[in-house]
Amino acid sequence: MSAPTFTILAEGAFGVETAKTASSAVRYMGDRVLSVVDSRFAGRTVEEAIGFGGDTPIVATLDEALARDPLPDALLVGIAPQGGALPATWRAWITSALERGLDVWSGLHTHLSDDPEVAACAERCGRRLFDLRKPPEDLIVGTGRAQSTEAMRLLTVGTDCNTGKMTTALELLDGLEASGLRTGFAATGQTGILLAGSGIAVDAVVSDFISGAAERLTLEAAAGKDIVLIEGQGSLMHPGYSGVTLGLLHGSIPHAMILTWMPSRPTIYGGNHEWVDLPELDEVVERYEKTLAWVCPDVPGRVIGVSLATWDIGEDEARDAVAHATRVTGLPATDPIRFGAEPLVTAVAEHYEGLRAARTT
Amino acid sequence: MSAPTFTILAEGAFGVETAKTASSAVRYMGDRVLSVVDSRFAGRTVEEAIGFGGDTPIVATLDEALARDPLPDALLVGIAPQGGALPATWRAWITSALERGLDVWSGLHTHLSDDPEVAACAERCGRRLFDLRKPPEDLIVGTGRAQSTEAMRLLTVGTDCNTGKMTTALELLDGLEASGLRTGFAATGQTGILLAGSGIAVDAVVSDFISGAAERLTLEAAAGKDIVLIEGQGSLMHPGYSGVTLGLLHGSIPHAMILTWMPSRPTIYGGNHEWVDLPELDEVVERYEKTLAWVCPDVPGRVIGVSLATWDIGEDEARDAVAHATRVTGLPATDPIRFGAEPLVTAVAEHYEGLRAARTT
Repeated sequence: MSAPTFTILAEGAFGVETAKTASSAVRYMGDRVLSVVDSRFAGRTVEEAIGFGGDTPIVATLDEALARDPLPDALLVGIAPQGGALPATWRAWITSALERGLDVWSGLHTHLSDDPEVAACAERCGRRLFDLRKPPEDLIVGTGRAQSTEAMRLLTVGTDCNTGKMTTALELLDGLEASGLRTGFAATGQTGILLAGSGIAVDAVVSDFISGAAERLTLEAAAGKDIVLIEGQGSLMHPGYSGVTLGLLHGSIPHAMILTWMPSRPTIYGGNHEWVDLPELDEVVERYEKTLAWVCPDVPGRVIGVSLATWDIGEDEARDAVAHATRVTGLPATDPIRFGAEPLVTAVAEHYEGLRAARTT
Repeated sequence: MSAPTFTILAEGAFGVETAKTASSAVRYMGDRVLSVVDSRFAGRTVEEAIGFGGDTPIVATLDEALARDPLPDALLVGIAPQGGALPATWRAWITSALERGLDVWSGLHTHLSDDPEVAACAERCGRRLFDLRKPPEDLIVGTGRAQSTEAMRLLTVGTDCNTGKMTTALELLDGLEASGLRTGFAATGQTGILLAGSGIAVDAVVSDFISGAAERLTLEAAAGKDIVLIEGQGSLMHPGYSGVTLGLLHGSIPHAMILTWMPSRPTIYGGNHEWVDLPELDEVVERYEKTLAWVCPDVPGRVIGVSLATWDIGEDEARDAVAHATRVTGLPATDPIRFGAEPLVTAVAEHYEGLRAARTT
């Protein structure tokens, strides 16, 4: 597919943490984002609202976004609320975008193509609906086939959800490609799929097939590559999402993991889960490594670096947190956005060389 | 719903391990099963074919089952192949049963009500389709609310899939009820749902909602009870199903677990997974307890007994295995079918009394 331009619907929610898909689209799709809709920030630029993203304008209404020149190719439904249902008021906005000739991309759990009113409108207008979370219909139960890749498999994991697993993978992708390593990206969430143009939203897959989906994604993205980066989801310690995380771990069977961490959070994220305390990082590392080893006891994958998300704390505090991560785990650490991804790129490249050397001897 | 009578379609597959839904229906629905269809055993009784189930006849064809008097109320599609697709040849059998006036119950992943030909036929014939694996549409992400039950929560877990998690729960249900404890059963698989008349097939739920489904089931089945038994699924060590198992564990947050084990298996079950070795039982106990403790560090649930499935080994060997389980784990153990459930019923009742005493002091 050619690369479309977008306006992003994020009414009442635009922000780094509140609208992950929207803010990541702004970060990684650059000038393909023509405008963002959120009346709370109307008149400001994206950069003014969230600290990055340049001078892309934020407008008050969808009508305003559609009155601008040039008209975007598509509307992106830019938030994915917990549970994923389509807010009733959004339906009218979506149909009006279709009527203006835009395609609509959505990461909602509720597929737009399954919504009779939206689907009929798209049909009538000759426009396309892209449901980023709609999984393929021919998935199977995982079988461990991911172990057969020539490419080194690297999975990003986390202390929690929303700690930068996708961002870390994308930053590594740039850095590894720049250093000459052929690198694939297996997208497992709606935003990653939007950016990569392919992938499977594993949290939308029927639960029997989580690891099968991870395996298939890994095999596809690994073909012809030196390294495949698998976008992690959730956390083993998140009582709402841990099953998805474990299925992804046991389906992709990584050679190595990068642990993502948001130092400002002492408990699991979100109003419903703060009763779960997060342990110290070395304990988190051990949990991932041991849990992975259950299905590959001979050569279990290791955590080889820590990637921090420090956008909500000051720079000194962030540097202290990076130092803390290295002290506790003995591993290279950085916030790849704030301080650059280099320490992690180097760690991954060295791990790759080590595996290759072990194979040839 | 009133209790219907059944003929069970298990062509080419009837057996304890090859047709779990069929063999469990025979074990627990007694004389509500009027016949079983599997041409390989035609002319024999169910007891002759699989060692229990009395003199229910096995017939060669569905036509033969439908020619018998009395006519059953319903056809049960009695196997659930890995992946769950509807074998093409079975569609004709199902429509012919509908045309003869039977309802059809199915545990297949592919919902009969979504099959246009089958659905149209049911409509035309005025018959009902029961898709045991079709989850409710209003599930949410798990939040830990299961912890609020007055009832003690007990989850059956396993070294592997197909090790007796449902059977153990059902045997405990009988034993605990007989000893005067009001006991609920939360069914999580198609067979359990068939027998209980309600439940959610957690392996058919969208993976974001596994723990939310477990939580809802637990709350519903716990209402007004002293103890709620939650039917486990899969195994933390099964690379195909571990995500479902963990979601169930973190959604139900049990006070106690019973570990099921099939001593004849040194590796994970099934042609695609035998590369995963099973560890010793004390290690398995530790994995479940530690993994559960991630989301309830204060009072983590413990494994309080071991339930064996020994139907494929001799009696002496089975007794040795029971003794081994107790020696290694320090816990009461039995094969509840072969040697009676009493040691486990006692362990659960004692744990319940202990929790109650701790609450009142």
